[in-house]
Amino acid sequence: MCVADVDARQRVDLIIRARYVCLVRPAAVLEHTSIVIDQGRIVDLLNNDDERLRKYAPGSVEDLSRSHIVLPGLINAHTHLGMTNMRGLADDLRLIDWLSKHVWPVELSLVDEQFCRDGADLGIAEAIRSGTTCVNDMYFFPEATAASCDAAGIRAIGSVNAPLRRRRRLNHMHTVSGAVFDFPSPYGSGPEEYRTKGHKLHKQYAAHDRIRTAASAHAPYTCSDCVLETVAQDSTAFSIPIHVHLHETRAEVEDSHTLNRDSHLCHRSDQTCRPLANFHRLGLVTRRLVAVHMTHLNDQEIDLLRQCNSSVVHCPSSNLKLASGFCPAYKLLAAGVNVALGTDSSCSNNRLDMFAEMKLAALLAKGLSDDPSAIPAQTALEMATINGAKALGIENNVGSIECGKVADLIAVDSDCIGMTPMFDVVSHLVYAATGANVTHSWVNGKPILRGGHLLTLDESSIKARSAVWRKKIIEVQRQASNEVPVA
Amino acid sequence: MCVADVDARQRVDLIIRARYVCLVRPAAVLEHTSIVIDQGRIVDLLNNDDERLRKYAPGSVEDLSRSHIVLPGLINAHTHLGMTNMRGLADDLRLIDWLSKHVWPVELSLVDEQFCRDGADLGIAEAIRSGTTCVNDMYFFPEATAASCDAAGIRAIGSVNAPLRRRRRLNHMHTVSGAVFDFPSPYGSGPEEYRTKGHKLHKQYAAHDRIRTAASAHAPYTCSDCVLETVAQDSTAFSIPIHVHLHETRAEVEDSHTLNRDSHLCHRSDQTCRPLANFHRLGLVTRRLVAVHMTHLNDQEIDLLRQCNSSVVHCPSSNLKLASGFCPAYKLLAAGVNVALGTDSSCSNNRLDMFAEMKLAALLAKGLSDDPSAIPAQTALEMATINGAKALGIENNVGSIECGKVADLIAVDSDCIGMTPMFDVVSHLVYAATGANVTHSWVNGKPILRGGHLLTLDESSIKARSAVWRKKIIEVQRQASNEVPVA
Repeated sequence: MCVADVDARQRVDLIIRARYVCLVRPAAVLEHTSIVIDQGRIVDLLNNDDERLRKYAPGSVEDLSRSHIVLPGLINAHTHLGMTNMRGLADDLRLIDWLSKHVWPVELSLVDEQFCRDGADLGIAEAIRSGTTCVNDMYFFPEATAASCDAAGIRAIGSVNAPLRRRRRLNHMHTVSGAVFDFPSPYGSGPEEYRTKGHKLHKQYAAHDRIRTAASAHAPYTCSDCVLETVAQDSTAFSIPIHVHLHETRAEVEDSHTLNRDSHLCHRSDQTCRPLANFHRLGLVTRRLVAVHMTHLNDQEIDLLRQCNSSVVHCPSSNLKLASGFCPAYKLLAAGVNVALGTDSSCSNNRLDMFAEMKLAALLAKGLSDDPSAIPAQTALEMATINGAKALGIENNVGSIECGKVADLIAVDSDCIGMTPMFDVVSHLVYAATGANVTHSWVNGKPILRGGHLLTLDESSIKARSAVWRKKIIEVQRQASNEVPVA
Repeated sequence: MCVADVDARQRVDLIIRARYVCLVRPAAVLEHTSIVIDQGRIVDLLNNDDERLRKYAPGSVEDLSRSHIVLPGLINAHTHLGMTNMRGLADDLRLIDWLSKHVWPVELSLVDEQFCRDGADLGIAEAIRSGTTCVNDMYFFPEATAASCDAAGIRAIGSVNAPLRRRRRLNHMHTVSGAVFDFPSPYGSGPEEYRTKGHKLHKQYAAHDRIRTAASAHAPYTCSDCVLETVAQDSTAFSIPIHVHLHETRAEVEDSHTLNRDSHLCHRSDQTCRPLANFHRLGLVTRRLVAVHMTHLNDQEIDLLRQCNSSVVHCPSSNLKLASGFCPAYKLLAAGVNVALGTDSSCSNNRLDMFAEMKLAALLAKGLSDDPSAIPAQTALEMATINGAKALGIENNVGSIECGKVADLIAVDSDCIGMTPMFDVVSHLVYAATGANVTHSWVNGKPILRGGHLLTLDESSIKARSAVWRKKIIEVQRQASNEVPVA
């Protein structure tokens, strides 16, 4: 090829030559296929031997044509990245013991911007390594998490977590892509400061190509009706998702329905109804609702979610670990509700590996429905990709491999004993692969993991900072256990 | 140290210097500890800085003192290794479709000694890589599997699988560490030849230090009462476990109780009782019974298992994938029944990773019991180690790290993002680690995995042989799909 030929070719940023390309939508796997990427977007899909590939002059070529499966990056639709330095802090405990003796003392003593930044860096490193390219996060100091996601090159929707819990009864709280609480915390002096910070964050990232914000209400039992109404208004005003823990436990649902004020989990409304009904009354059950957990649902509620085009985030590992109940994901999907997947935090999982959630979502549905065809592999993969994108309102850009979409992609090497032999690519992605099989990742067409190496994060620094937090956390726990007399 | 000092020291084969040693029994984790191994056995446990270590002159030293956790090798108490080349052959199907359209055609056309040997090599490679040092296997051509385990250096209890299923009603079958069927198969011409082979296999390995045999009855619905009685007698005569699928599905249990002869899953006895009751009547419910699955059990049955010191093998992934039901593992454990863990085959899982089974067993118990303290991490780890050893009658030799026991050990590197930070070693082994974190493995003190590299198996050869079987399997499927008209 002479120089003139080169000059005549169309310059593009990257060509990925894959053994398999799993499109997700349509439900198809292309073999021996090249993905042509320019300015962050997929511009062509051609067979590796196709003559038409010669018209492109790629800035770089990633040759994964021997054994790699390229698929859309996974979307983790519910995380608390800032908590990652509390991974495995305490397990196998009743919720109240876990919170009061372990999580709350640590959060009250240690949570600050640096804690959240370091936790987010750790969590994002794990997320990237295991194939996640987009997270929907909720935690304190969302500025820190957003900055971490921005630096790491990952895609993110950020919102703030629940208020720091205290031993007295929880007060109202409210977040709009920032935070509004009724009481002071390390994050701010009161409602006005939280809200100001929230709006500032929203404005800061309004034009960002990867970082967005969400309106977040922690849960029915921590938010009053007037706060929830404002969340609904803000979601509409800013066109952003409502990220909320909803129907997480049977007690939350039943104690709200009976207005059992002795329960910490009774919703803060005066309505004798289940929390979803109250959310609907207040205007939160819309196409922007991202309702996380939803372990207790009746048929009318499933139909309401379908009618309103709301999304559910299923967190199977976390729901099992905390014994919260079983999200009827297969029923929701059968009814036409959009169901995405999330890991929840590394405290209740304890990994941020979306491959594990895909497999568990598929297996659990079969066991619960007594039907081995419930949530087949393709559906599980959709839950972790295009359904997550739909939930977050970004399905026109990500969640599947289609020309015109943004190049958020990952590659899984199938040339390993645990994926040998391979009869069906999608089956292997869901039932045989784990996050450890992910070798490459691109967001907006930019590589952030290559050959198993993180390109945008410094693992040594992350581990060193984690070691410091570990010591501090152990000291807080030691003090807390001295303060709380053993019964 | 002068030459005279060296000569005065006690020669031992190996010292493993570990950051953490997880003993399992007692439930303790030792830090900075060295394991001294000689002639395949653990002879001493000392702090890495202990002066007394100087009295040993080790043939080799494995320094894992920076970040590795050394624990007993995991025991996979239910495998069908010979099937591994059918990994992911078909999923998300009703059992009868899965069997009749995929598994049976392949088995009837292809299963021979080489198929089983190659499948076993592949399965064992995966097992070793993911921390398993002992398998309890059941499949055709147990000689092939035994030879594969022997060559790979892994510990194994072998027995034969069910008869090759045919489209007509199944006949009686029976195995004593070999196989006896009522009809010809690729494995033999009839009952006499199977039994002769079985006895020969038992004799061949009677004095082997790693390979043992078991008496195997496939399931109540494939074995007549007289066959089951012989299994019980053989178990006693040879002092070997009885390896059996039992109470795998609700239909098996209920159709046996009602003697519903229209059901393929009705037991072959004329007793109107649940299969376990019939097994008890026939003398199979003993301390040697290794009852796999047990998804449907009432309180009386749990008490019977406890009284008889029988063992249950819980296969959580497989039970979910096939929608078989839920083994009440937490109830069995609470009642004092020994519960081990198994992956089942790579067709119904589709990985042979015992770390995944530990995590799922712990999570599932919490969800089903509505109690987050059900099956805590330490219990899950015991299920995969000492409980497996008890089930197989080898608990005096393996399953925990104790002086005098055989050195079947694995090492997990905790210096990875997904295990950072670490507050509790056992929590991380169960909830955060996966088989991919295993770097080293020893059986009888001999290394079989080192730094992530298999020492006794040739991965390239295994993959190449798998590729050949894959082609043959696809051809069989193609022919089968042509034969069976689509409804």
